[in-house]
Amino acid sequence: MSQIIPVILSGGSGTRLWPLSTDTRPKQFLPLASKYSMFAETLARAGDGSRFDKALIIGAERHVALMTGELTGETHARARIILEPCARNTAPAIALAAIAAGGGDAVMLVMPSDHVINDLDAFMAAIDSALPAARDGWLVTFGINPTGPETGFGYIEMAAPLDGLPGVHSVARFIEKPPRDKAEAMLAAGGHAWNAGIFLMRADRYLQELALHAPEMCATSQAAMQAATHEGQLIRPDAAQFAACPSDSIDYAVMERAERVAIVPMSCGWSDVGSWDALGDISECDPDGNHLSGDVIAFDTSNSMVRADGITVTLSGVSDLIVVANGSHVMIVPKGRSQDVKKIVEAIKSRQ
Amino acid sequence: MSQIIPVILSGGSGTRLWPLSTDTRPKQFLPLASKYSMFAETLARAGDGSRFDKALIIGAERHVALMTGELTGETHARARIILEPCARNTAPAIALAAIAAGGGDAVMLVMPSDHVINDLDAFMAAIDSALPAARDGWLVTFGINPTGPETGFGYIEMAAPLDGLPGVHSVARFIEKPPRDKAEAMLAAGGHAWNAGIFLMRADRYLQELALHAPEMCATSQAAMQAATHEGQLIRPDAAQFAACPSDSIDYAVMERAERVAIVPMSCGWSDVGSWDALGDISECDPDGNHLSGDVIAFDTSNSMVRADGITVTLSGVSDLIVVANGSHVMIVPKGRSQDVKKIVEAIKSRQ
Repeated sequence: MSQIIPVILSGGSGTRLWPLSTDTRPKQFLPLASKYSMFAETLARAGDGSRFDKALIIGAERHVALMTGELTGETHARARIILEPCARNTAPAIALAAIAAGGGDAVMLVMPSDHVINDLDAFMAAIDSALPAARDGWLVTFGINPTGPETGFGYIEMAAPLDGLPGVHSVARFIEKPPRDKAEAMLAAGGHAWNAGIFLMRADRYLQELALHAPEMCATSQAAMQAATHEGQLIRPDAAQFAACPSDSIDYAVMERAERVAIVPMSCGWSDVGSWDALGDISECDPDGNHLSGDVIAFDTSNSMVRADGITVTLSGVSDLIVVANGSHVMIVPKGRSQDVKKIVEAIKSRQ
Repeated sequence: MSQIIPVILSGGSGTRLWPLSTDTRPKQFLPLASKYSMFAETLARAGDGSRFDKALIIGAERHVALMTGELTGETHARARIILEPCARNTAPAIALAAIAAGGGDAVMLVMPSDHVINDLDAFMAAIDSALPAARDGWLVTFGINPTGPETGFGYIEMAAPLDGLPGVHSVARFIEKPPRDKAEAMLAAGGHAWNAGIFLMRADRYLQELALHAPEMCATSQAAMQAATHEGQLIRPDAAQFAACPSDSIDYAVMERAERVAIVPMSCGWSDVGSWDALGDISECDPDGNHLSGDVIAFDTSNSMVRADGITVTLSGVSDLIVVANGSHVMIVPKGRSQDVKKIVEAIKSRQ
């Protein structure tokens, strides 16, 4: 059997971890959860050459140096990078990868490049469960067994287990980010998982469902790849063709509409690190409950996360703060308020 | 009658307003309480040519550009600057000025360059009260009528009013920075004032008392001035002679020992701006109780003082904080804790 092709989605340029994360160096290229960038950690997760083929990476031209700089080791030195001419969300990005993978029955493991997975064994076990279903033509999504009534994730309701495929359930329905009471009800009822945006599926099956449910997206992606230029490990789809491609997520365009959609629930220490609070939740703390990174001087400080990058941050007598500073910006919010970064970033953009 | 000679003490290099105040640009050269530096505000306070002669400034060689840059206007363009070869506290600094003033019966108004006086009329009225006593040979100190049981200032106990000199009292005794209960008792008893370090006295009387109580200080100051070099408006006392001068404050060396020491109490909106909290007390606030200065973006923030210098500071959901940031350092303390700056500065120095 052929190996799994890791498909790594690295087109994001989110600002939820501003001011550290910027469009020049978005979150996936920062060493947030370890001393390695999240992009490097994602590559390493698919670094076992006995299981994985060389990776396909989808990213932006302006980040090409950040991506190629991480392509080391036997498996990844031969990785290919598809440079999106413009951002069109995940469904077209995965289409480009499926075409680059040959469009046949090769199985792709689609992963965002900016998630944390702490329990690699659990993740590999979930892949092992999902693989027979994927080979059999199921579009498998990995669900995260919820650890709390989170309102920031979409949920997936699981239906009956599939015959002869242990650990794999068919999907009853996808559920939008819920209000708190609905999240609590799903948690209490069981049988629901967070939608983590990680998938295992055959390239041909994905393109088949895309052609059925988003034919224009499928056609323009194929046209863009037919007219692509190649330079070493870089693939540049045709800009004009890809510009005509509609923009949509894989969930909306394919998963919620397709036949034979399955889910493998897992508990693998997953986090999407979607906010400074989320990063705080997975960061190790000192005895005072602080996570201090960079040049920080703190007295009588507790339960705080402080990151200094190219600047010295000093504190005394504070608690429950998130402080992130570089040479140009300082951000201060209380713990639990890191969603406020959004309006701060908007305020800064609006005056530029 | 001759005009009063302003003597402006500008040798300080305190770090109580770190990280804005540094040895390169200490507090007196910062625009803290208005858009002008405190040094410029001090000069302007003695800018009325009908009352004041050209000023004598005592400062450090490394700040000469900062000082000369402020010497504008008819009165101050001709000011002279005495550049201390080394720091020897206030008693020798004032001795240098008294000698430069000619050592005769000219009256000197000695003022630190880093204090705020908001009610100039009240200050001038106090000077008018003090002037006859000073001309008569009294060493007059200005006391601040206390507005609270402050423990950060020395106090002066006033004795009986002087005959024929309205508003002027003889001094009963000087009192060191008191503990809280003693400060409260003095406030309740009345008849006590804060020692503000502002004086009115004849040059000859000061030198006479200095010769009596600190003869070595007097002799070395005179030797340093006799061997001084002159360059335009700059006076450079001899370094070797001045290095031999003992270091002491005017209070310890002269005022607490001299005969004919008087006090004029005043209420003139005075502050020594001795901490970020002290600056907060005299700063105007917006309706949310914030004092924001520089490039600051604040949402849902209250009762906070934020100063950004060459950097953007953003906050959301915080209250009662003091935040001061420049391109190299950020300091965050709760209101009421600005004395913690001292240990922060010590920590930074100790690792250099």
